[in-house]
Amino acid sequence: MNTDLQDYSHKRLNILTGEWVLVSPHRAKRPWQGQNETVANEVRPAHDETCYLCAGNKRINGEINPNYKDVFVFTNDFAALQYNSPPFSVKDGLIEAQSEQGICKVICFSPNHSKSLADMSVNNIQKVVEAWQTEYKTLGECKGINYVQIFENKGAVMGCSNPHPHGQIWSQSTLPNEVEKKDAHQRTYFSTHKSSLLGDYVSQELNKQERVIYENDAFVVLVPFWAIWPFETMIVPKQAQKSILEMTHTEALLFAEAISVITKVYDRLFSTSFPYSSGIHQAPTNGEDNKHWHWHMSFYPPLLRSATVKKFMVGYEMFGSPQRDITAEIAAQKLRELT
Amino acid sequence: MNTDLQDYSHKRLNILTGEWVLVSPHRAKRPWQGQNETVANEVRPAHDETCYLCAGNKRINGEINPNYKDVFVFTNDFAALQYNSPPFSVKDGLIEAQSEQGICKVICFSPNHSKSLADMSVNNIQKVVEAWQTEYKTLGECKGINYVQIFENKGAVMGCSNPHPHGQIWSQSTLPNEVEKKDAHQRTYFSTHKSSLLGDYVSQELNKQERVIYENDAFVVLVPFWAIWPFETMIVPKQAQKSILEMTHTEALLFAEAISVITKVYDRLFSTSFPYSSGIHQAPTNGEDNKHWHWHMSFYPPLLRSATVKKFMVGYEMFGSPQRDITAEIAAQKLRELT
Ligand SMILES: O=P(O)(O)O[C@H]1O[C@H](CO)[C@@H](O)[C@H](O)[C@H]1O
Ligand SMILES: O=P(O)(O)O[C@H]1O[C@H](CO)[C@@H](O)[C@H](O)[C@H]1O
Repeated sequence: MNTDLQDYSHKRLNILTGEWVLVSPHRAKRPWQGQNETVANEVRPAHDETCYLCAGNKRINGEINPNYKDVFVFTNDFAALQYNSPPFSVKDGLIEAQSEQGICKVICFSPNHSKSLADMSVNNIQKVVEAWQTEYKTLGECKGINYVQIFENKGAVMGCSNPHPHGQIWSQSTLPNEVEKKDAHQRTYFSTHKSSLLGDYVSQELNKQERVIYENDAFVVLVPFWAIWPFETMIVPKQAQKSILEMTHTEALLFAEAISVITKVYDRLFSTSFPYSSGIHQAPTNGEDNKHWHWHMSFYPPLLRSATVKKFMVGYEMFGSPQRDITAEIAAQKLRELT
Repeated sequence: MNTDLQDYSHKRLNILTGEWVLVSPHRAKRPWQGQNETVANEVRPAHDETCYLCAGNKRINGEINPNYKDVFVFTNDFAALQYNSPPFSVKDGLIEAQSEQGICKVICFSPNHSKSLADMSVNNIQKVVEAWQTEYKTLGECKGINYVQIFENKGAVMGCSNPHPHGQIWSQSTLPNEVEKKDAHQRTYFSTHKSSLLGDYVSQELNKQERVIYENDAFVVLVPFWAIWPFETMIVPKQAQKSILEMTHTEALLFAEAISVITKVYDRLFSTSFPYSSGIHQAPTNGEDNKHWHWHMSFYPPLLRSATVKKFMVGYEMFGSPQRDITAEIAAQKLRELT
């Protein structure tokens, strides 16, 4: 282990975005007098009459959910993107805007209101993975949809407005900022090295093991060297695949297993249902070959020291760069011990 | 007013960073079942024995604060950046890191524990502005300090660990991500147009008035066309100045007035001490001429609908692009009505 990186303030490069994170390893022991989060430790029922995502219940727009048995996908009743809006663009001096078309969906992971991915069986998680595959494919084939963002906000602290286990899929006509950055950096690397940026990175990490939390035949779970959030992790296929559609049935099961492992580890860390936002970055659905893409799933959890103390990404982070105290190596070690 | 921009999902370009924000004007009426913030409406005493920022009190490291009368600046007891650490750099395959040196300071705006900038007189705010000028100058002259970030985190919801009115200044050897972006875009524009990007933008906004909240002889307060946060605003000098050092004494007073106006408006909006992170972006202190820079102060407040409901920048925002519901034009109108 490089001891400078554990002792002194430094910055680390995110090779996928080209941006830096400021790391302050010496600062991990600072006292905390700020806001504490409230922990919702109530036991939830398997079915909640008032939940608009439970099977058979009525949604806000009056529709009745079917009596679904595993996964249920529907179009978001309050979609951030409209699909049939008129295309327009505005360019007026230094003002520039473009219409953006899209389709937003909600995906219920389970009819059981009380579960999270961490509580679900690997087989049931695999059903979620298969639904993601179906949605990525069918949304990606819709006219004018060039990118599909799969994500989950888990926990009230992550703005999740309903505790029923669910994620979202926002698909749209252009590539969002973060995807543009990763597209560009993977493309440049691929054209120079004729190999996948993330594939080469994962080989290096597997060699070192320092930041690896878990691996199976097809996937590795690790804390990336440039992680921003205290316990940020990434699930990466060992072999380059541009999207989740390239997974075999067996690989989908191994991916589900990786999700199960890391979400259970997270719940163990602070003995709480661990909040996070997770998301899958993968090839745009723009009809190009996108050979440079290596898909991956990231988890951005806010908790820092306990179930109630989170890391705030505020002043300096908003105006300067993301900043973290605990290093990626220490975080990986803590998580690995809990596998 | 362009009605497409008020009716349909679209994206807007931030000309300073080159990044986009997704705007969903049709979505402002979505119901909220998620987390509510707690509002700290307790009346605070003018002096709090337990506060480590109050005059005459002991700090965590044992030092005693002086009996300061207006502004008090000291080096952060838990600085994120170290100044005298050994320089190093790590380049090992796809891993890249560099040591980062810096000095972090805390600036108490007032000895009065119960005040915020919104409650302070313009004359007292001017003393804060003058302290910012002194710090920008003296830190910027320190060996190896090439950038000075002035910012404030206000409110527990913004990770502020002490309610005593204070801000921070982190100065460092390299330019953080956000500053790099703004540096590049201002430089390109300046070299093409021989005028300031933000100066030309402000002229356009003053002409339109649509997003302007307040102006005096030297400053304009506006909601930028590309604002991310629901009630984000920006204070910009009408004439290009690369840093706050270029302000005359009169301009510093007018700047203090602009700060006073917008912070009071914010407090009125939801009848609460309005939380935000604010920051000043200005020329690096790297010894270059930096003629392309036009300094400005931005406010990023999280509240969306009331004192307790904030906008969460989570899943889609972290993995895709920032997203907002209420448009910049509507936000500007609401704020303008409260001046
Ligand atoms: O320095 P403070 O007020 O203790 O800490 C606060 O501001 C810092 C700078 O934005 C952040 O890194 C911390 O997460 C936040 O809690
Ligand atoms: O769609 P939800 O769960 O109501 O809303 C949540 O996720 C969205 C996508 O990340 C965010 O824009 C919202 O701020 C957040 O509260």
